[in-house]
Amino acid sequence: MTNRDDKTLTSSGFYVSQEAPIHTDDPIPTPSAPAPDILRCAYMELVVTDLARSRAFYVDVLGLTVTEEDEETVYLRSLEEFIHHNLVLRKGPVAAVAAFSYRVRTPEDLDTAVAFYTELGCRVERRAEGFTKGIGDSVRVEDPLGFPYEFFHDVEHVERLAWRYDLYTPGALVRLDHFNQVTPDVPRATKFMQDLGFRVTEDIQDEEGTVYAAWMRRKPTVHDTAMTGGDGPRMHHVAFSTHEKHNILAICDKLGALRQSDRIERGPGRHGVSNAFYLYLRDPDGHRVEIYTQDYYTGDPDNPVVTWDVHDNQRRDWWGNPVVPSWYTEASLVLDLDGNPKEVVARTDASEMAVTIGADGFSYTRQGEGEESMPEWKQGEYKLGHQL
Amino acid sequence: MTNRDDKTLTSSGFYVSQEAPIHTDDPIPTPSAPAPDILRCAYMELVVTDLARSRAFYVDVLGLTVTEEDEETVYLRSLEEFIHHNLVLRKGPVAAVAAFSYRVRTPEDLDTAVAFYTELGCRVERRAEGFTKGIGDSVRVEDPLGFPYEFFHDVEHVERLAWRYDLYTPGALVRLDHFNQVTPDVPRATKFMQDLGFRVTEDIQDEEGTVYAAWMRRKPTVHDTAMTGGDGPRMHHVAFSTHEKHNILAICDKLGALRQSDRIERGPGRHGVSNAFYLYLRDPDGHRVEIYTQDYYTGDPDNPVVTWDVHDNQRRDWWGNPVVPSWYTEASLVLDLDGNPKEVVARTDASEMAVTIGADGFSYTRQGEGEESMPEWKQGEYKLGHQL
Amino acid sequence: MTNRDDKTLTSSGFYVSQEAPIHTDDPIPTPSAPAPDILRCAYMELVVTDLARSRAFYVDVLGLTVTEEDEETVYLRSLEEFIHHNLVLRKGPVAAVAAFSYRVRTPEDLDTAVAFYTELGCRVERRAEGFTKGIGDSVRVEDPLGFPYEFFHDVEHVERLAWRYDLYTPGALVRLDHFNQVTPDVPRATKFMQDLGFRVTEDIQDEEGTVYAAWMRRKPTVHDTAMTGGDGPRMHHVAFSTHEKHNILAICDKLGALRQSDRIERGPGRHGVSNAFYLYLRDPDGHRVEIYTQDYYTGDPDNPVVTWDVHDNQRRDWWGNPVVPSWYTEASLVLDLDGNPKEVVARTDASEMAVTIGADGFSYTRQGEGEESMPEWKQGEYKLGHQL
Amino acid sequence: MTNRDDKTLTSSGFYVSQEAPIHTDDPIPTPSAPAPDILRCAYMELVVTDLARSRAFYVDVLGLTVTEEDEETVYLRSLEEFIHHNLVLRKGPVAAVAAFSYRVRTPEDLDTAVAFYTELGCRVERRAEGFTKGIGDSVRVEDPLGFPYEFFHDVEHVERLAWRYDLYTPGALVRLDHFNQVTPDVPRATKFMQDLGFRVTEDIQDEEGTVYAAWMRRKPTVHDTAMTGGDGPRMHHVAFSTHEKHNILAICDKLGALRQSDRIERGPGRHGVSNAFYLYLRDPDGHRVEIYTQDYYTGDPDNPVVTWDVHDNQRRDWWGNPVVPSWYTEASLVLDLDGNPKEVVARTDASEMAVTIGADGFSYTRQGEGEESMPEWKQGEYKLGHQL
Repeated sequence: MTNRDDKTLTSSGFYVSQEAPIHTDDPIPTPSAPAPDILRCAYMELVVTDLARSRAFYVDVLGLTVTEEDEETVYLRSLEEFIHHNLVLRKGPVAAVAAFSYRVRTPEDLDTAVAFYTELGCRVERRAEGFTKGIGDSVRVEDPLGFPYEFFHDVEHVERLAWRYDLYTPGALVRLDHFNQVTPDVPRATKFMQDLGFRVTEDIQDEEGTVYAAWMRRKPTVHDTAMTGGDGPRMHHVAFSTHEKHNILAICDKLGALRQSDRIERGPGRHGVSNAFYLYLRDPDGHRVEIYTQDYYTGDPDNPVVTWDVHDNQRRDWWGNPVVPSWYTEASLVLDLDGNPKEVVARTDASEMAVTIGADGFSYTRQGEGEESMPEWKQGEYKLGHQL
Repeated sequence: MTNRDDKTLTSSGFYVSQEAPIHTDDPIPTPSAPAPDILRCAYMELVVTDLARSRAFYVDVLGLTVTEEDEETVYLRSLEEFIHHNLVLRKGPVAAVAAFSYRVRTPEDLDTAVAFYTELGCRVERRAEGFTKGIGDSVRVEDPLGFPYEFFHDVEHVERLAWRYDLYTPGALVRLDHFNQVTPDVPRATKFMQDLGFRVTEDIQDEEGTVYAAWMRRKPTVHDTAMTGGDGPRMHHVAFSTHEKHNILAICDKLGALRQSDRIERGPGRHGVSNAFYLYLRDPDGHRVEIYTQDYYTGDPDNPVVTWDVHDNQRRDWWGNPVVPSWYTEASLVLDLDGNPKEVVARTDASEMAVTIGADGFSYTRQGEGEESMPEWKQGEYKLGHQL
Repeated sequence: MTNRDDKTLTSSGFYVSQEAPIHTDDPIPTPSAPAPDILRCAYMELVVTDLARSRAFYVDVLGLTVTEEDEETVYLRSLEEFIHHNLVLRKGPVAAVAAFSYRVRTPEDLDTAVAFYTELGCRVERRAEGFTKGIGDSVRVEDPLGFPYEFFHDVEHVERLAWRYDLYTPGALVRLDHFNQVTPDVPRATKFMQDLGFRVTEDIQDEEGTVYAAWMRRKPTVHDTAMTGGDGPRMHHVAFSTHEKHNILAICDKLGALRQSDRIERGPGRHGVSNAFYLYLRDPDGHRVEIYTQDYYTGDPDNPVVTWDVHDNQRRDWWGNPVVPSWYTEASLVLDLDGNPKEVVARTDASEMAVTIGADGFSYTRQGEGEESMPEWKQGEYKLGHQL
Repeated sequence: MTNRDDKTLTSSGFYVSQEAPIHTDDPIPTPSAPAPDILRCAYMELVVTDLARSRAFYVDVLGLTVTEEDEETVYLRSLEEFIHHNLVLRKGPVAAVAAFSYRVRTPEDLDTAVAFYTELGCRVERRAEGFTKGIGDSVRVEDPLGFPYEFFHDVEHVERLAWRYDLYTPGALVRLDHFNQVTPDVPRATKFMQDLGFRVTEDIQDEEGTVYAAWMRRKPTVHDTAMTGGDGPRMHHVAFSTHEKHNILAICDKLGALRQSDRIERGPGRHGVSNAFYLYLRDPDGHRVEIYTQDYYTGDPDNPVVTWDVHDNQRRDWWGNPVVPSWYTEASLVLDLDGNPKEVVARTDASEMAVTIGADGFSYTRQGEGEESMPEWKQGEYKLGHQL
């Protein structure tokens, strides 16, 4: 947790401090080798069980652009992208994530990555020809948290379609924004990611020092990835950006028109964390996709770190709408480098869902006021045990 | 209910027919006197228990314009209005609705209204000087359904502030759009409103013939008022329009910033019924206010009537998000002409909440598929009994 | 012109009065026969010289829905429409307008229309089977102003696609909003339209009493048609509505992407008159199409009439951007009932362009200040003679 | 100019290449000292002649937040900023720019900046206490192009108001986005800025090799500053971002309501260059302010450089709307370190205005087609000599 004396309460109800000095009792050792210079999250490789069904969702419904495809794989990108892909759908027997892939600044950063993870004792695999089409020399690792991470620099350039408004749909996705990972021990994971060169931008804590989630970035947005406390390693979601909020609403409208509204899991809404406007969908395999827009610039080295109280019911949704339980409990498996699902380890720290919306949890709208200050009907919503 | 043979299934999953031949076994007799020529819903008179607190909500938060005020009363209007007010807040001991007020085409329509309601045996009161400031000759009645209705033509003109963009807030309210009333017997109420000259635009029914709600209009929008099945007479909500959807999102954002997010009861979302974008708030007395935008033109006499199946889970929210129970169960008292709350009579027909989200209810996303076709987490949301 | 004593200056810089008592020295006699009860502008029949090229513009670029088509004709509608069409493209040798068509309340209103125009000595033609597909019994007339007007009630219903968000484009057109006609003598035309049952909502005048344009409505929006002073009879534009302003911007973006930006003639911008957001395009034959959103409710009989000073440079564009000369001077021919172009009669009253942006004209931003109070560069824009 | 063989024509009509190898015949020598590590453009110091009048524009109209002020100076910031200010208004006798100020990564970068500019023979001044309130140790230089540049790291943190939606106006400005500088020799200026560590993202060239303008960045947006060919050194504009396009439209609407529409110089519109949505205003001293939203991510080292043909009439406005002459010709003076206006040197290369909209210039909508392929009225607009 962050030392409370280092935090300043803002007029918006959260705290700010300098780079999160998150303490962990069980640290992964910091390698002596330097970390690779990561530019940004670049693509996710998803294993899907029915390629045609998944393609229909990502292409026909969400409007991602097919860069290339064959019988086993579809390579997709967003409208403002100039690298070969932001998402790979690969047909496989078990729905899972095969890679969280990051672009690094130089070809030499691959050597750096190999040294960094080798020192950590991780399994490391390098392929000069890449693991997917369109991408050259690449390194894949099973990182100390159990996630399949990839690093690459060489990549095929394709046309950035940003100006091709004739191709835009009402819900056009323009960028890959971030990943979100589920891991049992958030402070341990965060400290490791700081060693990898990430900077924390926001987190959720309680007064006892439990850390429930942390957001961290390389590019100057709120995150390239986040660590969500829960049974892991699992993938919580992958997020694409739209230009404006109405684009996100248009996706909901279209899902309604297609009678696929049950793909909508949570939202749309305004996040407290990140201040972005959001929507969570579930793809045909249950992989969670966020649609996201309008967070803020975080590129200064002294960018204030925002800490939210876990009991602040505006932290996850600034409008105070409750988070649906599945959003807390369900996530996608991740694969090891042999393509087998990684075993999931249970979280032992407190559960955010339990401490906020469960029978023994509580949430407040106004700090210092108990849940009983909320209107009765609102309390009921939070308890979910409210009798009809 | 509408004869099923008269209904045509659309590609969007609802039915259309001509003017709803809603049958009632317990009709209010049609008067021989003609109905007054009603232009539109014009204003609601709300009794509030703490005038300053209510003023803060409607003026400081929602940005309505104060036309005039004194220690007992605040007269408010929306930015595109040119009549004196769309909402009256009057201080009183019990939160309630004192009048649903409609503007009629001519001064003579007041005589017509008196004759119409007198023939029905209703209590009728006429005041040449009006019941509220800014309004002249007016008729108030306790209608056969128990609601306090007002009719007026003479009104003080004030400046239409539509062009005064220096006064707009991000969530600017530009028009009063409609009322919504809770009444036990929807077919009976609907037939009476048809006699009063209203035309049905949409309704919710089931296969057994139960009518759960009906929307009806004078001006060519989806409604000037609606009849919602439930214990009544009560007021379900009063609705104001914004220009665009982002204006509604801005109201949510502002409530978050003010740490009043618990005023948000339901939404924002897209209605199935009306196709409008919506948000439901609760004012400091619990009066429900809808913010609404973008329904469709209904002014042709053969405008198709839309009928929704009560089990279609996109009828109330096109995105399939569940309706919070309080939205179904809570509503405001209405006053008789002496200012005393009207007794509430229980609905005996089936409850929409019970047949859809309760333990024995069911909802579908795709007609012909059972609720079990929804993802498991979505079913849980609908049952609300899902274990955490 | 309106009597100045009857006008009240608003805080926005224009005037309001009651129903425009526009005086004309050359009135068309008021028929003793009543006027038909017109519901709304319903469709325009456009003659186009290259059907495929026009179809590409209206369908592929603007996204109108094809209800039906053959080798000679394309029938198009907007997404919220339930009647057969809002626009007919018919192949012909000369680009022109064959009909401004209005829907009337009842079948009997056709008899009324016949009597009304017959008394005026107009050529009247009635076809029980209609003049276009999808429409039944219809009356076409050459009205006293020289325009081909149509009236009909019977029409084929088609599915209202309002909920079909899977069909929406980013610039989706949802309604036909209005027509705009060019006529030499605006007061004469306005008085005739008042006899036909239209009500004036806004106009542009000068202090000397010249009326430059007038807007008039049947449905409760700012207009179903407008009379623009100029050489006529000609058609100035036909206008379709979008839901929001970003939809209009999306049409511009798409035209840029298609390298058809030269279809954009004027805008996008905010009108002073009507307070709507607008864009003017020119179709492949030069027919002008407006895209329009968010005017205001005008349905009350005492709706204030807005009068703009012709020298107020915010009247045509609230942001003060100059009107391009072609917008004032170019317009489409109209056809007589034999399909021959009507002769165009020159306007003899002052020209709005000449009195505002020409060498001898002037415009002000702030009433009482001369044009010299504008920044120098802005004056140059208005003179268009500014030296590069 | 960029070697044509290195450029690839895109489907949108512009070219892409790798980092612009812009050639200059008159290079500023590259210092042997390294360049400071610049984070981003941080603030501009503007000298204004009437502080109250300028404050009214930036605070009351545009809604910037006052961090601090006194009789001589107002310190303003945007809603998402956490450093003391993004704009300083300082009262002075001559309207001008006193500093283009950039934040650097570390305090040590100030030493680096001193060495870098000293080697170039520039006047350099360092103040440990800063040149403006809220900012510590700072270096100001007169750079080789004649511009007053500032670098700082130490700065007072203030609350980031991003979540304070109660403070948002409809046209809320959320970030400082970029500067734009006028300089006679764009290739020379660009090469110097590359030495300073900037990367070119887009430029405008012609076939003969003339470079008309170039955009360059440190943070991963399209620019932190741009070099516009013209008489210089002068300041072309300073740009603030909004979240969405409607926010920019709202600023126009508000200026109309305040009868200050003559502050609007150009737009709103969509840029070709940057793909952003824009508006140009002129403040009370004539300083140009751009309101800007939605460009794209440029942070990868091999981000494709976009080159526009100067005759492509969608380069400056994607919708093909003409650029008003004042936008090309007028700009603000800049001050030397003594506070005296820098002498303006005339551009000798071809003028973008002359080659595009002047009598001898030409513009096309579709490459390969001459201007005569545009509609006649559109050609007239471009010539501006079109007779009324």
